[in-house]
Amino acid sequence: MLNELPLPDLAATSAALPIPEEETEVLAAIRKHGALSRTDLVRITGYSRPKMTLIVGRLVQQGILREVGEGESQGGRRPRMLHFDTSRGYVAGVDLGATSLSVALAELSGTILERRTEPADVRDKPPLILDRVCALLLEMIQARGIDATNIKAIGMGVPGPVQFSTGRLIAPPLMPEWDGYPIPATLRETFPMARIVVDNDVNVMALGELRGGGGVGVENFIVVKIGTGIGGGIVCHGSVYRGSDGCAGDIGHICVDPHGPVCRCGNVGCVEALAAGPAIAARGVEAAQSGSSPLLLARMQTRGGHLTAEDVGAAAAAGDRIAIGIVQDSGRMIGEALAGLVNFFNPRLILLGGGVANIGHQLLASIRQTVLRRSPPLSTKDLRIDYAALKLDAALIGAITLALDHVFV
Amino acid sequence: MLNELPLPDLAATSAALPIPEEETEVLAAIRKHGALSRTDLVRITGYSRPKMTLIVGRLVQQGILREVGEGESQGGRRPRMLHFDTSRGYVAGVDLGATSLSVALAELSGTILERRTEPADVRDKPPLILDRVCALLLEMIQARGIDATNIKAIGMGVPGPVQFSTGRLIAPPLMPEWDGYPIPATLRETFPMARIVVDNDVNVMALGELRGGGGVGVENFIVVKIGTGIGGGIVCHGSVYRGSDGCAGDIGHICVDPHGPVCRCGNVGCVEALAAGPAIAARGVEAAQSGSSPLLLARMQTRGGHLTAEDVGAAAAAGDRIAIGIVQDSGRMIGEALAGLVNFFNPRLILLGGGVANIGHQLLASIRQTVLRRSPPLSTKDLRIDYAALKLDAALIGAITLALDHVFV
Repeated sequence: MLNELPLPDLAATSAALPIPEEETEVLAAIRKHGALSRTDLVRITGYSRPKMTLIVGRLVQQGILREVGEGESQGGRRPRMLHFDTSRGYVAGVDLGATSLSVALAELSGTILERRTEPADVRDKPPLILDRVCALLLEMIQARGIDATNIKAIGMGVPGPVQFSTGRLIAPPLMPEWDGYPIPATLRETFPMARIVVDNDVNVMALGELRGGGGVGVENFIVVKIGTGIGGGIVCHGSVYRGSDGCAGDIGHICVDPHGPVCRCGNVGCVEALAAGPAIAARGVEAAQSGSSPLLLARMQTRGGHLTAEDVGAAAAAGDRIAIGIVQDSGRMIGEALAGLVNFFNPRLILLGGGVANIGHQLLASIRQTVLRRSPPLSTKDLRIDYAALKLDAALIGAITLALDHVFV
Repeated sequence: MLNELPLPDLAATSAALPIPEEETEVLAAIRKHGALSRTDLVRITGYSRPKMTLIVGRLVQQGILREVGEGESQGGRRPRMLHFDTSRGYVAGVDLGATSLSVALAELSGTILERRTEPADVRDKPPLILDRVCALLLEMIQARGIDATNIKAIGMGVPGPVQFSTGRLIAPPLMPEWDGYPIPATLRETFPMARIVVDNDVNVMALGELRGGGGVGVENFIVVKIGTGIGGGIVCHGSVYRGSDGCAGDIGHICVDPHGPVCRCGNVGCVEALAAGPAIAARGVEAAQSGSSPLLLARMQTRGGHLTAEDVGAAAAAGDRIAIGIVQDSGRMIGEALAGLVNFFNPRLILLGGGVANIGHQLLASIRQTVLRRSPPLSTKDLRIDYAALKLDAALIGAITLALDHVFV
C-alpha cells in the first residue's frame, strides 16, 4: 500500500506488503498523549510486552522515536519515556490544486513548522511542477539547517485518479501530461530517504477530516469536493476506502440527467458537467447576457466579460433571484447524486469542501433538501450534511497525515 | 451487532458489544480443515497459546466444540483434536421471500441436513409467518430427535430494510405489517437457546457469496438482487458492510431518470420502478396490447391476461424483437445505476441474483455494456459483472452462514 517505488514489478510487490498497523498505532498514541513509556503503550494498544519492545525498537532504529528521559515509577524501576525524535525526522505535505501548489514542513508529531503556497498550472508538465515542490521544500529545510535525508516521508494530494499502489495518476482528465508519470521516483531523487505517498486530493481531504476535522470518531462518511470538478473521498469502518483499483470516490461522473449536456468525459448528464464551478459560471454568463440578471451583467462587465461560480454566489448572497436559482439548481443536482450514494452507502456524515462549496448557504440547503426528499428515512434519520471542518487546509493537513501514516516503513 | 434482544435499551447495549472475531476465526478454520489441535489453531490464526486455550475453552463449554480423539504426535504428547460438537448444537437458516418461505437445518459444520420450502405471503402478519418458521423447524428437529434447546442460532433474511442492531424491520415497503416487529424475541419463545440474527435478504445473499460463492477471496464487491424490487448487498474489505444504520445497499431507489415514472416510494425515476420485474411485465403487457408483439399477446392470452418478467424473457429468448428491447432497456437502466456505484465504490466484482436476473442473456450484456460505457477505464479494467454463483440458494446458505457467525456468543 505504499507508492514510492518507480518500477512496475517492484511497485506490484510493494502493493502487496501489508501496512504495519502496529507502528501506526504506537505513533498515533504518542501523537495523542505525548511521551509514553513502553508499559503505557502496552496498555493503550493491547499488544504484548515482547511485541511492543520489537515495535519500539524498529521505530527508534529508524530515527522516528527516541528515549527522552524517565517517567514516574509505578513501584519498580522508573520507566524510560519515548517521544518523537524531532532532531532526526521530518515529513512534508504537498497539496497540488488545479491552480495552486502548497507545501508544508512538519515535525513527526504532526506540528506544522512552515508552509508555502504559490500559483501553479496543473496542466504543466510534471518535471516543472515537481521541481517547484522540491525547491519549496528545500528552501524551508535549508533555512532551518535540516538535511534533505531527514525528510522521512512526503504525502502528496493531486487532483486526479491515482493508482495508490504505484503513486501514478491514471488517465487524469485535468492533467493529461501526468498520465503514468513516476512522481515517487522523481521526488526521491531529491529526498532519498523519504517514503513518497501520492493520493487523490479528495482522499487526502477525507484523511485530514478523519484525523483532525469533522470526521473524528465517525466510522462511515463521505467528503465531497466541489470546485472545477466534483470528487468524493470515502471513509469506511474508520479508514479511507480507496476501492479495488484506488479510484473509489469518482462521483463527478455519476449521471443525474440522461437528457443533460455532454461532459468532458464523453458521457451525458454527469453531475460535474451540470453542477460544478464551470457550469454555475456558464449559467451566470447566460443570465447576464439574456438580461434576466442585471446584477450578474454588471459584475460581468467589471470582470472583463467573465464570471466565476463565486461571482454567481456573491450575486445570490446579494439577493439576486436568478443567481439564487442557479445555486439552488446546482445543489439539487449534487443532492440527487448524493442521495443515490446515501441509499447505497448509508453514511453518518457528508462533508462538503472545495472552493465552490462555500459560494452560498443555498447550495448546502438545497443539497440537504434533495437528499432528505430522495433517501429513505432510516438512512437520513441521523445523517448530517455539513461543511468540511478544515476548510481550505484539509488537503494540506491530510497530506501531512498521509506522510505520517507511512513514515515508519 | 447481535439482534436477538427484544427490549430497546438492552438491544442498544447488545449493539455495542463487539463480535468476538477470535471465535469466528477458530470455527472458520475447523469448518475449512476439519478436526484441528490447539497447536494447529495457534499456527493458523496467529493467536498466542494461552489465548487459544481460553477461546477453545469457551467454545467447548458452550457445546460448540468437543475433543474428538488424538492426532499425530509432532515429537511430544499426541495432541487432542477439536471438532464441532454435532451432538449438542445445530443452526437454522430462514429465507423469507416475497412469496415463499424456506427453512434449513444445518450442523455446526455448515452441512445442511434438511430444508423445507412452502408458499408464503410476506404481507401476512408476522405471527402467522413466524409460526410457520417455528413449525417447519420443529418438524425437522423432532423427526431427528433433536431438542429445541439444541438450536444455537437462527439466521434469517427478510426482503426489507433491517436495523441490524435490533433485528427489526424499519418501514419495509413490501411488508408494512412487520415495521418494528420483534422477530428475535418471538422466535426465542420456541428456541430459547438460539441467537437470532435478522438481516436484509441481499446482505444475506452477499454473505453467502462471500463465504461459499462467487465472492470467495474478493475484498470489495456488490451483490444485486433483481426481482419484484432491486436491492444491493455490499462487501467491503472482506466483510458485509451494512452502513451506519444497517440500511446500506438500498439501491432500488437510485434515480436514473428525473423525468421517469413515480415509484411506490413517492419519488420519481427510481431504477426499481423502471427496470425491476413489474416494470418489465408492464411493458410486456403494453407491447401485447398495442399489437407490436404478437408473441407476447399469444403468451398473455394463455396466461389469462397476465404476463410476468419471465414471460418477457422467454419471448426475448425466442427472438421477439420487442421483448429483446424491453429486456435491454431494463439492463441499460440497471447499468446506469450500477455505473454510478462503480464510480463511487470501485468494486472488483458485481454479482447479479434474484428471479429476474436470469430472464435472458441480454439483461447481463446490456448491464455490462452500460457500465463499461459510463464508468472510467481504471474502474472497469478488472471489474467482473456476472451471475451470482449460488443462484436461488444464496439466501438460504447465507442465512446459515449468518447463524454460524453468531453461534459462539
